[in-house]
Amino acid sequence: MTFVENAWYVAGWAREFSETPVAATILEHDIVFFRGATGAVSALEDRCPHKGMPLSRGRLFGDHIQCGYHGVTYDGQGHCVRIPGQSNLPTSAAVRSYPVVERHAIVWVWMGDPDKADQSRIFDLPQLGNPAWHGHQGDALDLAANYLNVAENLVDPAHVSFVHPTTLGNAASEDIPVEFDTSGEAIVAWRWIRQAPAVGFFQEYGNFSGDVDRWHYYFLHLPCTAVIDFGSADSARALPPERRHEGVQIYALHFMTPVDQHRTIDRWMHLRNTAVGDDQVSAKMDAMFRIAFNEDKEILEAIELAEAKPRQRRPLKLAIDRGANVYRARINKLLADQLTDKSA
Amino acid sequence: MTFVENAWYVAGWAREFSETPVAATILEHDIVFFRGATGAVSALEDRCPHKGMPLSRGRLFGDHIQCGYHGVTYDGQGHCVRIPGQSNLPTSAAVRSYPVVERHAIVWVWMGDPDKADQSRIFDLPQLGNPAWHGHQGDALDLAANYLNVAENLVDPAHVSFVHPTTLGNAASEDIPVEFDTSGEAIVAWRWIRQAPAVGFFQEYGNFSGDVDRWHYYFLHLPCTAVIDFGSADSARALPPERRHEGVQIYALHFMTPVDQHRTIDRWMHLRNTAVGDDQVSAKMDAMFRIAFNEDKEILEAIELAEAKPRQRRPLKLAIDRGANVYRARINKLLADQLTDKSA
Amino acid sequence: MTFVENAWYVAGWAREFSETPVAATILEHDIVFFRGATGAVSALEDRCPHKGMPLSRGRLFGDHIQCGYHGVTYDGQGHCVRIPGQSNLPTSAAVRSYPVVERHAIVWVWMGDPDKADQSRIFDLPQLGNPAWHGHQGDALDLAANYLNVAENLVDPAHVSFVHPTTLGNAASEDIPVEFDTSGEAIVAWRWIRQAPAVGFFQEYGNFSGDVDRWHYYFLHLPCTAVIDFGSADSARALPPERRHEGVQIYALHFMTPVDQHRTIDRWMHLRNTAVGDDQVSAKMDAMFRIAFNEDKEILEAIELAEAKPRQRRPLKLAIDRGANVYRARINKLLADQLTDKSA
Repeated sequence: MTFVENAWYVAGWAREFSETPVAATILEHDIVFFRGATGAVSALEDRCPHKGMPLSRGRLFGDHIQCGYHGVTYDGQGHCVRIPGQSNLPTSAAVRSYPVVERHAIVWVWMGDPDKADQSRIFDLPQLGNPAWHGHQGDALDLAANYLNVAENLVDPAHVSFVHPTTLGNAASEDIPVEFDTSGEAIVAWRWIRQAPAVGFFQEYGNFSGDVDRWHYYFLHLPCTAVIDFGSADSARALPPERRHEGVQIYALHFMTPVDQHRTIDRWMHLRNTAVGDDQVSAKMDAMFRIAFNEDKEILEAIELAEAKPRQRRPLKLAIDRGANVYRARINKLLADQLTDKSA
Repeated sequence: MTFVENAWYVAGWAREFSETPVAATILEHDIVFFRGATGAVSALEDRCPHKGMPLSRGRLFGDHIQCGYHGVTYDGQGHCVRIPGQSNLPTSAAVRSYPVVERHAIVWVWMGDPDKADQSRIFDLPQLGNPAWHGHQGDALDLAANYLNVAENLVDPAHVSFVHPTTLGNAASEDIPVEFDTSGEAIVAWRWIRQAPAVGFFQEYGNFSGDVDRWHYYFLHLPCTAVIDFGSADSARALPPERRHEGVQIYALHFMTPVDQHRTIDRWMHLRNTAVGDDQVSAKMDAMFRIAFNEDKEILEAIELAEAKPRQRRPLKLAIDRGANVYRARINKLLADQLTDKSA
Repeated sequence: MTFVENAWYVAGWAREFSETPVAATILEHDIVFFRGATGAVSALEDRCPHKGMPLSRGRLFGDHIQCGYHGVTYDGQGHCVRIPGQSNLPTSAAVRSYPVVERHAIVWVWMGDPDKADQSRIFDLPQLGNPAWHGHQGDALDLAANYLNVAENLVDPAHVSFVHPTTLGNAASEDIPVEFDTSGEAIVAWRWIRQAPAVGFFQEYGNFSGDVDRWHYYFLHLPCTAVIDFGSADSARALPPERRHEGVQIYALHFMTPVDQHRTIDRWMHLRNTAVGDDQVSAKMDAMFRIAFNEDKEILEAIELAEAKPRQRRPLKLAIDRGANVYRARINKLLADQLTDKSA
């Protein structure tokens, strides 16, 4: 097993779901999502057990979905409610359904044991829904990369100077060591670059009088959510870390949804404490993040191809890898526990 | 073994064969077809035994085909007749040849033991070549699907209401049970929809005064030929089944030629007892069938992809599957007999 | 093992290497080539041992190449010279380097044991660098074909009449037997076509008064270099073979660089004893060779596809195969010796 099943994954932004069925593969499960007449989103196994036809190629009738081959019809819980031409509905006429919750305009799906689908475990952030913060949903970045490498990249401040030199970082920070805190639920990695010129987005919106202190905090929540807290403040103010929200602060949220072992959807959104209500700023931030995250995509997809080839030498371990190493150890622990649970 | 070898398969319409060699893969055999100077079509293994070059990339000289790499030349029976630069022709210089018959402007090839190539086993229909019927050759539909699923679809009246709602069927027939006769050489499935509006093609050409009785009869001949007899007659006439030819009747013939386990060519043609000699009507029927058969193609290719994935639950068996089930059982019997023959 | 490792292979023409890193796969090794500030070309394993990132996606700083993910930097010998954010450079921080030599404006790379990289073994020809001869570098022909089949084609005069009827050969030579000399370091195959019309290029530049004697000499040097010496002279002069340079003579050199078992780069160049200094003639010859070598490409790629399929019958061996057979036997001997060396 390579995926943590007992977890909530993001299936998409709420606005993406309607009466038109949508197919998605999550943790190698083919799922059809649809919003029935009651407004609720359902998630069913995307395969009619009759001939194997994907239900996502069928049509919705109210809260029911009808297979496009012979009209076998299922309700939102996956129970068969009609077989054209016969009145008897065999008990085997059913498909798996997945628990779905809609929160903060995000659709979450639980991929494991439905009895363990605890809604209190859905990721949350106080700034989500706080009117002092402007939240904006971005894109679904489609990465031909294993989710572990994607996650690793999101607890790694050190790559910013090299991969994102024109948007999120610059050469000033190349040699500044990374700090870690692995004592809590989230793995945290961060770096302060003090008394340096503002970069990219901050240069444009921060209205700074001179050099700034800037920070990158990376919070990685298992299995597949990352929060990147980055910002800048006038160096003259000498803000301590715990007061960094007094500067210009942005959260970039990444919800990674593994498709299979070689593909991951990274849905990203952002929150900011400046230019609240200004949609033009949101669009500019989207544009900047698109550039930056496509830089990551190039890297991660090149590594995916490299990993498919035989490795000639032992991996080089660096000090900057500590967050990634702890992440992988914790994932392995979760996968081992999951295996134990299943065989119990 | 997954294909019935001792059978005649359609290699193409007669007009497709000329002095330009044509490559085709049938039951995973690579074959070159060409029409030599005598007018007969030959079928040879498409691989020169010298370097493996496909003979289909070579040129025809009279009744002989010359390899395009070093000029080694074979006659229509696969015997080597020339090796440039040497006078000695080794006995190993030969390729396999396949029995070919041209009938009703269709080229048939026998894929099994040449000694068993009995021409009386070539599919025939009394209406083929009958001047009271207008026959017209259609297309070669290229399906990324196993032939068993294609054949199954051709003994299945029930899918018409859902897959072809605008051409061959409509919702009126959704719940009408399918009848079967599996006592003869062909497996037969049918359905009469009585006192309903005419559909698609029949609406346009039938000139009906009101509701019609319409029928779909599916005849599946093993291994790979299907005849669909469908038509409509004024309900007021209350025609019994055995007199249905007094209505407007169309035969759609499907000749399935498996390429390999995941691809099938479905060559289709049609015959009708109306508008005889009217080529515009043939063209309109082609257009209608293209739409309908592409609807089947979408279904069958989606199922082919689904079957490549692990199945989570037992297949759901329905009453409408009876023809398909008998077909698969008979194919399995033929394959088992074939295996016994080979080891004998 | 399928490749001769202890040999010099052509990595490219000298002009292709600059401060922009270039990725190439040679004998299944991923390599990055770059020309550092000193002007020398370096060849390193194209994989940073930290995360697997190809170094070819990084940047050059002087003679050093920096990984594009975290900035780990290597010199031209593959030693790590910098890890941003940490002062300690672990000894495992290194990548393999490959010996490189630049000669006759060609970059050669040694793929085997560096201690055996003897520069005297680099292929040479007296006419290379001789001002009485005009040399011109052509293209890198990318062939989806195993190198053994490519090499075979380059010690095979017999295919010319069938594959290149409009450029290098014509039907006059179809039945002329091929002669061989396999006593020396190079395997030699040749054919003289006497008192025949001049063909292709020679027709245009030879200025012949009547029929010509024309020759094709193929020299195949193991493992992967071929020299084709072809030319024409007025038949009236009745030139003996050892004086053929008095006619119009062209050398086509082919440097085959296997990418993997199913792909080979064939870099070709030509030398001639006529129209020296005339770049328009070089361009015309390039155009002629492009046509001819693409004819070979079609053949070789068709054979590569055929070889992936199960073979139904024993290969047919012809008299014209002698050069190819000796070549394969010698390659097998080299591969066996290489295996013995490695296990010693």
